[in-house]
Amino acid sequence: MPGHFADRLLEAIARKGSPVCVGLDVAVEHLPAALAVRPQAPRAEKVAAVRAFCEGVLEAVASIVPAVKPQIAFFEQLGPPGYALYHAVVKQARKLGLVVIGDIKRGDIGSTAEAYAAAHLGGPDAPDAVTVNGYFGADGIEPFIKAAQPRGRGLFVLVRTSNPSAAALQDFTDASGKKLYELAAEQLARQGSRAELTGDSGYSCVGAVVGATWPAQARRLRELMPRQLFLVPGYGAQGATAKDCAAAFKDDGTGAIVNASRSVLLAHRRGDLAGKDWRQAIQQAARELADDIRSALGR
Amino acid sequence: MPGHFADRLLEAIARKGSPVCVGLDVAVEHLPAALAVRPQAPRAEKVAAVRAFCEGVLEAVASIVPAVKPQIAFFEQLGPPGYALYHAVVKQARKLGLVVIGDIKRGDIGSTAEAYAAAHLGGPDAPDAVTVNGYFGADGIEPFIKAAQPRGRGLFVLVRTSNPSAAALQDFTDASGKKLYELAAEQLARQGSRAELTGDSGYSCVGAVVGATWPAQARRLRELMPRQLFLVPGYGAQGATAKDCAAAFKDDGTGAIVNASRSVLLAHRRGDLAGKDWRQAIQQAARELADDIRSALGR
Repeated sequence: MPGHFADRLLEAIARKGSPVCVGLDVAVEHLPAALAVRPQAPRAEKVAAVRAFCEGVLEAVASIVPAVKPQIAFFEQLGPPGYALYHAVVKQARKLGLVVIGDIKRGDIGSTAEAYAAAHLGGPDAPDAVTVNGYFGADGIEPFIKAAQPRGRGLFVLVRTSNPSAAALQDFTDASGKKLYELAAEQLARQGSRAELTGDSGYSCVGAVVGATWPAQARRLRELMPRQLFLVPGYGAQGATAKDCAAAFKDDGTGAIVNASRSVLLAHRRGDLAGKDWRQAIQQAARELADDIRSALGR
Repeated sequence: MPGHFADRLLEAIARKGSPVCVGLDVAVEHLPAALAVRPQAPRAEKVAAVRAFCEGVLEAVASIVPAVKPQIAFFEQLGPPGYALYHAVVKQARKLGLVVIGDIKRGDIGSTAEAYAAAHLGGPDAPDAVTVNGYFGADGIEPFIKAAQPRGRGLFVLVRTSNPSAAALQDFTDASGKKLYELAAEQLARQGSRAELTGDSGYSCVGAVVGATWPAQARRLRELMPRQLFLVPGYGAQGATAKDCAAAFKDDGTGAIVNASRSVLLAHRRGDLAGKDWRQAIQQAARELADDIRSALGR
């Protein structure tokens, strides 16, 4: 794999014209009518339907968005064949020229973290980056960095998540007014900004997950982590607008990539797209996503 | 599956006589000579060797310890066939009458957490409990509770991990002197102690992971979470003694289960066990583990 993860991602964003990512959070019960399977159908049928859906989505969005983010949980729900399908989807997406972020949110310590990193960043067909849960602290993150960097790959460490009860833990505040997510950001900026991790773009291969549902925090985190690319969930179905997402970017329009899953994957359910082929509906939703974020950034 | 997870685990502990768990953190390079495979060997050979090792370990320890904890990271490192093997090992361990804790440390939000919970706690052959990363807060934990409780299964949420840099994040302190891990414990005690989650034993199906390498914190957490069973890593290879582990228990000797992985799995490398069959070496190490913890609890 050539080059540096951050540089490759930024080039892909520049080429496609918008910093967006389509999340492949594929629930069997949300498949379009043409691919629908009964809840009681054998697992192999479900796997085949999800495979066909993912292939269709990838082909529909490959010319529009720079990146996709397969969510491994939904593949794991289909058992070992689903797990194998996750890896196949990653491979196919990379073949189509997409930057692939494996949303695996793994995290552990020592040799266990090394095993996860080898599993998900090590092989020739691994995704370009993965998401990591950093609750263990720096020594839980380091093995992922060690696996990613020499291979031109990257990682995004959870700092501020987009869910309603995130605040109860992540906004925990010390006597000086510092919040837990700010501490996590400072530690990540320190650990993830070493010279050997930084690309020509000035960004590191170690990025952060920063939910779009909290724009004020995103602005603060943007200051605390100048060398980290942000992966920004929360747009659309989770309630954040394109303007909210803009808080995760620098003034020059770089520094983040906005993920949308359901607003794209469920486009076939939209009244105004009724009658369209599901692939066309998804393609149109991906275009709207790209335009929406580009406009919000004033590009 | 009959009964309540905490009650079943406590009964198994009473039957075997010691609150210990053998962790199946199986690194290919640590296999005993009889099963050794070259680093360049095809993946199928590695999977077969790990399968044979796990079967041998399970048979060796089944009469001695109440529980085992397969670590999914090492299985994932072997790709999709390794992932399938994890599920097969879980199934075999349950057949042997062992309580099985799947060490998966998954965590996410909303429908994604539901997918993980369905994948790892939903099916007929799922483990008796799984580990969960709670960085997302209560709404990231709830889907795992919802999947576990009606099936007589359980979960252990990370509160205080056993690694060196855990303190840098988890000891973050507010103006009143409360630490992050204490906040996590209070939230978990609240969320995980509802009446419908509590078994005849008085313990909940929602437990906590509390590292043995920090006995003072373990004592404090024991007070904060009276209804939570603790899964205690850190014994042996990570440096904690049986006396350190005792801090996680109540005065009546209940409330925790101590995990050991490398000190049992690598017994075949011990000089004093040289010449023994690897299964006998592992069995002896499991017996020593059980005796060591039992003695430290004054039983």
